[in-house]
Amino acid sequence: MVQRVGVIGGGQLARMMIPPAVELGVELRVLAEQPGSSAALAATAIGAADDVDAVLAFARDVDVVTFDHEHVPQDVLRVLVDAGVSVQPGPDALRFAQDKLEMRRRLSELGVPVPEWAAVEDEAALQAFVDAHGGRAVLKTPRGGYDGKGVRIVSAGVEGADWFADFDALLVEELVDFRRELAQQIARRPSGQVALWPVVETVQRDGVCAEVLAPAPGTAPDDRVRAVCAEIAVGIAEGLGVTGALAVELFETTDERVLVNELAMRPHNSGHWTIDGAVTSQFEQHLRAVLDLPLGDPTPSAPWSVMVNILGGPQDEPIDARFERAWASHPAAKLHTYGKSARPGRKVGHVTVSGEDLDDVVYQARAAAQAFDD
Amino acid sequence: MVQRVGVIGGGQLARMMIPPAVELGVELRVLAEQPGSSAALAATAIGAADDVDAVLAFARDVDVVTFDHEHVPQDVLRVLVDAGVSVQPGPDALRFAQDKLEMRRRLSELGVPVPEWAAVEDEAALQAFVDAHGGRAVLKTPRGGYDGKGVRIVSAGVEGADWFADFDALLVEELVDFRRELAQQIARRPSGQVALWPVVETVQRDGVCAEVLAPAPGTAPDDRVRAVCAEIAVGIAEGLGVTGALAVELFETTDERVLVNELAMRPHNSGHWTIDGAVTSQFEQHLRAVLDLPLGDPTPSAPWSVMVNILGGPQDEPIDARFERAWASHPAAKLHTYGKSARPGRKVGHVTVSGEDLDDVVYQARAAAQAFDD
Repeated sequence: MVQRVGVIGGGQLARMMIPPAVELGVELRVLAEQPGSSAALAATAIGAADDVDAVLAFARDVDVVTFDHEHVPQDVLRVLVDAGVSVQPGPDALRFAQDKLEMRRRLSELGVPVPEWAAVEDEAALQAFVDAHGGRAVLKTPRGGYDGKGVRIVSAGVEGADWFADFDALLVEELVDFRRELAQQIARRPSGQVALWPVVETVQRDGVCAEVLAPAPGTAPDDRVRAVCAEIAVGIAEGLGVTGALAVELFETTDERVLVNELAMRPHNSGHWTIDGAVTSQFEQHLRAVLDLPLGDPTPSAPWSVMVNILGGPQDEPIDARFERAWASHPAAKLHTYGKSARPGRKVGHVTVSGEDLDDVVYQARAAAQAFDD
Repeated sequence: MVQRVGVIGGGQLARMMIPPAVELGVELRVLAEQPGSSAALAATAIGAADDVDAVLAFARDVDVVTFDHEHVPQDVLRVLVDAGVSVQPGPDALRFAQDKLEMRRRLSELGVPVPEWAAVEDEAALQAFVDAHGGRAVLKTPRGGYDGKGVRIVSAGVEGADWFADFDALLVEELVDFRRELAQQIARRPSGQVALWPVVETVQRDGVCAEVLAPAPGTAPDDRVRAVCAEIAVGIAEGLGVTGALAVELFETTDERVLVNELAMRPHNSGHWTIDGAVTSQFEQHLRAVLDLPLGDPTPSAPWSVMVNILGGPQDEPIDARFERAWASHPAAKLHTYGKSARPGRKVGHVTVSGEDLDDVVYQARAAAQAFDD
């Protein structure tokens, strides 16, 4: 009786579920948008995530449906649930990851600390918010944003004109004066068990995650910030009914508060370090969680792990030449490729290095990623 | 330019190459004996390892051919080499893993310490060896043995009668008075680089590997036995021209000698702990080595790792019930399944636990394996 997990979406997150599925003896099936996806090895069906017939046909042959991304429309998710399919996380949770206004409203109801925010329906309302918050604010489309898209800093209402044409309302937030960005990974089973990795520091460049330092430096196990982040994540996972992996992106402010920035209800870039740096990776944990199996030990397996994304890189250099260059000098670097063609700025892989000295680990990880990427 | 590694044989060793192939972006192709193999996810062709046409057709579409087992006949291997295929390890090395008499002759020529041995062609010669070695000896068929098959302890020449009918000569060895059994893993690139994991202790039951303790207790990095084992393995890898992973099974005798027992020129059960317990696993290292890429860091990632094989188990219990039982009490146990139907005594998976206290690690690994296997 092999359990079958169906993943909608064939990107790198589905791809990175393949190794733990092989180890656990779980049959992974992937509904990919097109042939030749990152998760091609497990891609058993081709179809769009908003094609209800394709998704339903795919779902009927698996024990649980989960996701590589949050772009499956609510009406498609509801059809699955009505057909008796186990969808993890379910539509009632996923809508808070799909719509930033719904997320902000619900987190505020739950008393979770968030930046000051408002739903604005026109330029005048946006201008009023900007005026009330020091002349600058962060404007976000409620849906469709990722990796810096759908987010802009504005200082006048007119700067939202194009987005107001497409959305009934936009989310506007105070520009948080933050010391650094953090991310808290948690996994939760439908039956309630949760497991948390230590909070990590994320370093963004141009709106895209560039590096992750795990654990976040300065957050010992008894640290206040670590405890606050864990408490926030448990509150969100339980309050929103999240199942599977949840990533909570946070700001640590200059006045020592922790505010929730974004949510992702799936394995997340900020948790890739767990593949090599924790007893149980976020991908293995996600599979266990959506199948409602006991969760694994999330303890880090080394004092420090640092993950560096590989962005783009030249198209024409053979991969073995890049391996040769990177590994010859950094034999402890763990490379993960996504099976994507290189394109400047595109995440095509990542490198993790673990060890006892943070400075050395950061150096090794950056140098190895640079060598692969040159 | 994705590199393609072709593996002949679709057993659990090929299966365990899938995760690192996904991570490295190497395309793994498997020639499996039949559909539904352990490595079914990567099985792109079905054919017998002694079917020269099937093997050659498979080999023409990959960059390098390597192996899940040592049962590809020499004449098939020679056809591949003559056709310009990169075969790693090559036939000149593999023959010493395929034929125990050839192995003993060559190791003796190289000056590697081995048990006293002889090639015997009839019962009289066997009787004479037994008489000269205290009345008992170990008799082995030169080919076809594994997991205790093709090996028996004899006290009279007549006990070899059935095997003499099938082989021109048999291998007879002194019954070594050993304290424990060890295994030394090494990987070697065609261009010469080698990497060694620390020597491990293997515990056999009924001729089958039951547990592995890594590193072998009592062998600190500066230990004499550790250094001797490493020197022996380097000597064999270089002397026999082995490429890829090599496992050297050894006896540590009661009079503190180290003698070579068997060789395996592929990833080996005694190295499964490296998946969870070392920076670079034997499966990743094997892929790097056969592609002649720089080898990874073989350093253990924890002070102790213990691997326990899962043998057989009941056929009718759902795997999730077994997961539930094992993981609820042993969340740090890393389970690896082989996708095989259960049958008493058959290796269907293994468990690895890593940690700082050997007694605790042994306890956790045994208990988790027992729970999966009950």
